[in-house]
Amino acid sequence: MSYKSDIEIAREANKKPIQEIGAKLGIASEDLLPYGHDKAKVSQNFINSVQDRVDGKLILVTAINPTPAGEGKTTTTVGLGDGLNRIGKNAMICIREASLGPNFGMKGGAAGGGYAQVVPMEEMNLHFTGDFHAITSAHSLLSAMIDNHIYWGNELEIDERRVAWRRVVDMNDRALRDIVVSLGGVSNGFPRQTGFDITVASEVMAILCLANDLEDLQKRLGDIIVAYTRERKPIYCRDIGADGAMTVLLKDAMQPNLVQTLENNPAFVHGGPFANIAHGCNSVIATKTALKLCDYVVTEAGFGADLGAEKFMNIKCRKAGIAPSAVVIVATVRAMKMNGGVEKADLGAENVEAVVNGCANLGRHIENVKSFGVPVVVAINHFVTDTDAEVQAVKDYCAEHGVEAVLSRHWELGSEGSEDLARKVVEVADAGTANFAPIYPDDMPLFEKIETIAKRIYRADEVLADAKIRNQLKDWEAAGYGNLPVCMAKTQYSFSTDPALRGAPVGHSVPVREVRLSAGAGFIVVVCGEIMTMPGLPRKPAAESICLNAEGQIEGLF
Amino acid sequence: MSYKSDIEIAREANKKPIQEIGAKLGIASEDLLPYGHDKAKVSQNFINSVQDRVDGKLILVTAINPTPAGEGKTTTTVGLGDGLNRIGKNAMICIREASLGPNFGMKGGAAGGGYAQVVPMEEMNLHFTGDFHAITSAHSLLSAMIDNHIYWGNELEIDERRVAWRRVVDMNDRALRDIVVSLGGVSNGFPRQTGFDITVASEVMAILCLANDLEDLQKRLGDIIVAYTRERKPIYCRDIGADGAMTVLLKDAMQPNLVQTLENNPAFVHGGPFANIAHGCNSVIATKTALKLCDYVVTEAGFGADLGAEKFMNIKCRKAGIAPSAVVIVATVRAMKMNGGVEKADLGAENVEAVVNGCANLGRHIENVKSFGVPVVVAINHFVTDTDAEVQAVKDYCAEHGVEAVLSRHWELGSEGSEDLARKVVEVADAGTANFAPIYPDDMPLFEKIETIAKRIYRADEVLADAKIRNQLKDWEAAGYGNLPVCMAKTQYSFSTDPALRGAPVGHSVPVREVRLSAGAGFIVVVCGEIMTMPGLPRKPAAESICLNAEGQIEGLF
Repeated sequence: MSYKSDIEIAREANKKPIQEIGAKLGIASEDLLPYGHDKAKVSQNFINSVQDRVDGKLILVTAINPTPAGEGKTTTTVGLGDGLNRIGKNAMICIREASLGPNFGMKGGAAGGGYAQVVPMEEMNLHFTGDFHAITSAHSLLSAMIDNHIYWGNELEIDERRVAWRRVVDMNDRALRDIVVSLGGVSNGFPRQTGFDITVASEVMAILCLANDLEDLQKRLGDIIVAYTRERKPIYCRDIGADGAMTVLLKDAMQPNLVQTLENNPAFVHGGPFANIAHGCNSVIATKTALKLCDYVVTEAGFGADLGAEKFMNIKCRKAGIAPSAVVIVATVRAMKMNGGVEKADLGAENVEAVVNGCANLGRHIENVKSFGVPVVVAINHFVTDTDAEVQAVKDYCAEHGVEAVLSRHWELGSEGSEDLARKVVEVADAGTANFAPIYPDDMPLFEKIETIAKRIYRADEVLADAKIRNQLKDWEAAGYGNLPVCMAKTQYSFSTDPALRGAPVGHSVPVREVRLSAGAGFIVVVCGEIMTMPGLPRKPAAESICLNAEGQIEGLF
Repeated sequence: MSYKSDIEIAREANKKPIQEIGAKLGIASEDLLPYGHDKAKVSQNFINSVQDRVDGKLILVTAINPTPAGEGKTTTTVGLGDGLNRIGKNAMICIREASLGPNFGMKGGAAGGGYAQVVPMEEMNLHFTGDFHAITSAHSLLSAMIDNHIYWGNELEIDERRVAWRRVVDMNDRALRDIVVSLGGVSNGFPRQTGFDITVASEVMAILCLANDLEDLQKRLGDIIVAYTRERKPIYCRDIGADGAMTVLLKDAMQPNLVQTLENNPAFVHGGPFANIAHGCNSVIATKTALKLCDYVVTEAGFGADLGAEKFMNIKCRKAGIAPSAVVIVATVRAMKMNGGVEKADLGAENVEAVVNGCANLGRHIENVKSFGVPVVVAINHFVTDTDAEVQAVKDYCAEHGVEAVLSRHWELGSEGSEDLARKVVEVADAGTANFAPIYPDDMPLFEKIETIAKRIYRADEVLADAKIRNQLKDWEAAGYGNLPVCMAKTQYSFSTDPALRGAPVGHSVPVREVRLSAGAGFIVVVCGEIMTMPGLPRKPAAESICLNAEGQIEGLF
């Protein structure tokens, strides 16, 4: 049997006008700002008008540690949303926007896959509604204004060696990682060394995704620390006078984007911060608006549950005042096998023993998520090569650990394949057993927050950090930043900081290489290991194969 | 009497849904890709469907050399378009898009002024429909792919010292003018010196504005020379393999943007290349599409007629196969006074003598435009302080030079004030006296093309260029580029290369500092004097005052 590719399925989508999708949510067409016929932003007026409504139930979709086998977190998010609609529930999904740059390196990210996709796929992988361009512009304006301030006399006494604000571009451009600017003499300013990150790594992105409204957005933008004086006094974005104009540039980008699934169910696709140096979730404004419009809102978090779900709970939920009613952990038989020691080339053969061995990774994620006080459902995202015995092995493992694993075939069948999962999720969410709480309080010292995550989530023995880092954390506590959550930046491939250590390792150490204050976003970034904030292109970039075909369709992007 | 500001008038605009504006042009709503409720792109299908229609008449609006007094070229373009509609003609306008970056430096550019404006003004000065962001992305992709090619082994043997392709950003960021990239060791590539220009200076912008369709766009993108080998062999964008993906990124940006005037008449606002190192006109695709939809299409060219109209005729019309039926030269009494030696502070006082003296500048533009074989109308864009005697002086001068000058009060009165101008333009255009031809043939040697413009348009005695420049031009002729038009980059404030030399100077020399080949756009840039392709921000940038007010409106941008 042969299967259609994601892009073939997406092109056959029977899309409805976006006004019809909005109508399902009770949004009048004048409250939708259309971008073409299949995308729209929801007006700020409409968002304001629904604030008094009761919230629906929030379902988080997370996953085991990612493997090259693929887990299908977004696919399952879409499939679950469609499944909920199929069984008669009023439901929608909230996912992140794709970054443009990386699509020209490796083959681009579809939004879901198979018969569980969000469309229009092409545009979501290109400019979409321009949100990331707006973020790049706002970031670039601040960058230019900082050097301009220094150029015109540096009244704020910025130490040019201590400019913390780098530049960004939404492109994989390694040549810009480390640069010297302002060469060429007096009229170009004072030379200094700096660099570019990719737009999704911008603090502006994290801020847009955590801000409650435009006022909060401007306040947070103003709080960004852009530089320090010789005496280490922080200089804020507000001091540079950029926060107002940045807010103007981000005005439309703050409005959630409405699109649809292949089954014409509504989806908000909005924001996309890095899941390492930022919190990796779609925007708070999209999630909170969706909760006012639907009984069930399915959303996802970046990477595996050790990073994504942890940050979703400890950062996004804490700051936004929201809480999940249930968490779905996505696992695949293939990924279990890889965690059980099988190489990618050998995934085709049945291997129940490897599946069982690999389940240790899943088991730990189940325990971890439960520790936040929320009930768990495991979704086995079905691959057509999975055998019944392998699937049963995962189900048995989960049953032994007190959670139900539901096989879901949304990739192959759409919502027809995810009905069981949808019913189970409703049952668990409606049972009202959730009693969510972050795993550390606001007033815990910063280093203890890091230790709490490392020991309780990663199951490390210890956190290694030299005196400089510990002192830096104490200085920030003294400066009033001690109440912030911490945002861990480590490899997504392992509970440990060693990407090769699959399964459920114990006895490891978590070395902290660096800590950074994102004062606008409102968290302390804890860098454990090498974190790349500007990817490069591969030897043969996908871009070389991307083109328009004779029918005007895009080839090579997917 | 007090007058409302442009932004006050724009906010009071009684905008119609863009679908209604499209309907006036016979564009069905499914052929409009809306961006919000007041902007839309015209579908490629629709554009293809009208290709067999007969063209309407093209009216070019140009101006005397700009002075700090302001001429109101766009205002007159809008006023004339509205005037034509008012007298019952089927007419529309085509103008350029604004660049985002400069709006944060000086106060932003409105689209017209007074009661002759295009709306939505705010969005046209911000992200609009994302065209410039798409151009920045396409440009950035090529930039990244060039350094990536070198990084992975440099199979094409690019000489790193001879990479001609710079980077761009749509922001006034002087610190990026001159930079060193790829510092930081092996994983970041080979350090080299380069820099950023502002997006409007990108060759991609010029290409988008000159391309006839997507196929032509990709061909031209492929033709861009990005670097040379040690042996001076050109390396093309096509060799890097970026042209297909760049076309994909520019697919939507190629579609003209439909908006409306304050009087609900249709306007295409599309493309915005620099008027010095590029040709300074809105896109060919917008102009040619408009000509299929209306009996009269009013468009404008950048700067004064010596630069803007010259390039419109010799580059845009030549390449696009279009021709103006009439040219309107905009003059103001105040600008005449400044050309006649009056300082800006003294413009308020009546000074007929200065007006008469300043008219020499206007007179030469009239002669020049006529030399292209097209009839001329002078529009006196009325300022409320102009006296009758001053206006009469301009009229008398024009009459002596065989053209009619029409007073137009569109700024104050909208189309009610531009009826006379509209009637005169129709009379002249309908008379069929136009017999347009560029002032030099394709096969003239490149240096002679430069001399032709310098002597016939600037009235210089000679063109100064050292042997290196002359040899470079000969090399390009040998390489097959001799048939390209030349694109002059000189000051817009004078016919000469000295910005202080107002009026109608004679006997000057035109020194050529540098020549550049824009092989994709299809012209040779001739740089005469200092040309800034990356502006800086002023000591107190407008951005510091830009913010959202309590009503959510944008303050400080205008």
